[in-house]
Amino acid sequence: MLSARNQFKGIVKSVTLGGVMAEVVITVGPLEFVSAITRTSAESLELKAGDEVRAVVKSTEVLIDK
Amino acid sequence: MLSARNQFKGIVKSVTLGGVMAEVVITVGPLEFVSAITRTSAESLELKAGDEVRAVVKSTEVLIDK
Amino acid sequence: MLSARNQFKGIVKSVTLGGVMAEVVITVGPLEFVSAITRTSAESLELKAGDEVRAVVKSTEVLIDK
Amino acid sequence: MLSARNQFKGIVKSVTLGGVMAEVVITVGPLEFVSAITRTSAESLELKAGDEVRAVVKSTEVLIDK
Amino acid sequence: MLSARNQFKGIVKSVTLGGVMAEVVITVGPLEFVSAITRTSAESLELKAGDEVRAVVKSTEVLIDK
Amino acid sequence: MLSARNQFKGIVKSVTLGGVMAEVVITVGPLEFVSAITRTSAESLELKAGDEVRAVVKSTEVLIDK
Repeated sequence: MLSARNQFKGIVKSVTLGGVMAEVVITVGPLEFVSAITRTSAESLELKAGDEVRAVVKSTEVLIDK
Repeated sequence: MLSARNQFKGIVKSVTLGGVMAEVVITVGPLEFVSAITRTSAESLELKAGDEVRAVVKSTEVLIDK
Repeated sequence: MLSARNQFKGIVKSVTLGGVMAEVVITVGPLEFVSAITRTSAESLELKAGDEVRAVVKSTEVLIDK
Repeated sequence: MLSARNQFKGIVKSVTLGGVMAEVVITVGPLEFVSAITRTSAESLELKAGDEVRAVVKSTEVLIDK
Repeated sequence: MLSARNQFKGIVKSVTLGGVMAEVVITVGPLEFVSAITRTSAESLELKAGDEVRAVVKSTEVLIDK
Repeated sequence: MLSARNQFKGIVKSVTLGGVMAEVVITVGPLEFVSAITRTSAESLELKAGDEVRAVVKSTEVLIDK
């Protein structure tokens, strides 16, 4: 069980590999999350469209716009 | 227009003030976000339950759990 | 399986609760990690000294001092 | 003296350069840290395998998995 | 109005596009900020040298070196 | 020498201690930075108004508002 307060189940929509980083788009119900992780991490998870995943965000990383 | 790829409209559910930090819970459709910001920031935004806000997360802060 | 590249097994040494945040010290072999998470997160995990945990850090959060 | 609570002496194992980012693997005793920094930063530090460095992480960036 | 406590008006000096990430240098008075955002974000903002922007940093991301 | 691309010399204006966290305001020329670090970190650095410090930010933590 992870301490991060924001954990949302979703489906990988796309994975774009760069030289060192990868961009992963995740569909969470009506929302779309974008995650930038290392390419080696995307490859070790074998991330691909259709995968069931959770998008995870630590609460100290959430800004508020009012 | 903000560079952060993750921006979700929601409603403030609660604001808890600590000595230096504040915890803000935001309802985004069926999801609930938790944000930890400084107390002075929560106070300068006059955040309170019912406020219309956006939860904002930079894509480099989104982990993936598969 | 979590995308974060830095995941280290350790033992909780201490948990200090503040108003909104909590400081958790984790012993990882000869190293000591300090984590600042929300108090509600520490409480929902029921973190206490002696717990077996993993300290998790996204690679984009690791600075290098040379 | 840096405020970050997590500072660990290690040796650079590898540096991989991408277009904009670089991935640096650091051996810290029995552990291995992965850091993603900008390519320009890796180049200005002239990071290469064998360098003595410290991996530095702010405590607010450490998640806990129990 | 954004909760981030650090918001500084400046001018984009350069934009370097990588495969997945982009590096943006911003001149803020006598200072120079470097930002690493996703390439898709830089493209959707149509960032280019000369643009008037604000560099934004959450206070939990500011380390102190004394 | 630290990999963080954003390092700005300044003077501590104020230190506010909470239960677990501390808020530090730093004057950098015409700008003012706000940093949230752990209380134990502020205490171990013996941070106080008038101290000469550097505010340090990793480039992956800088958002852009256009």
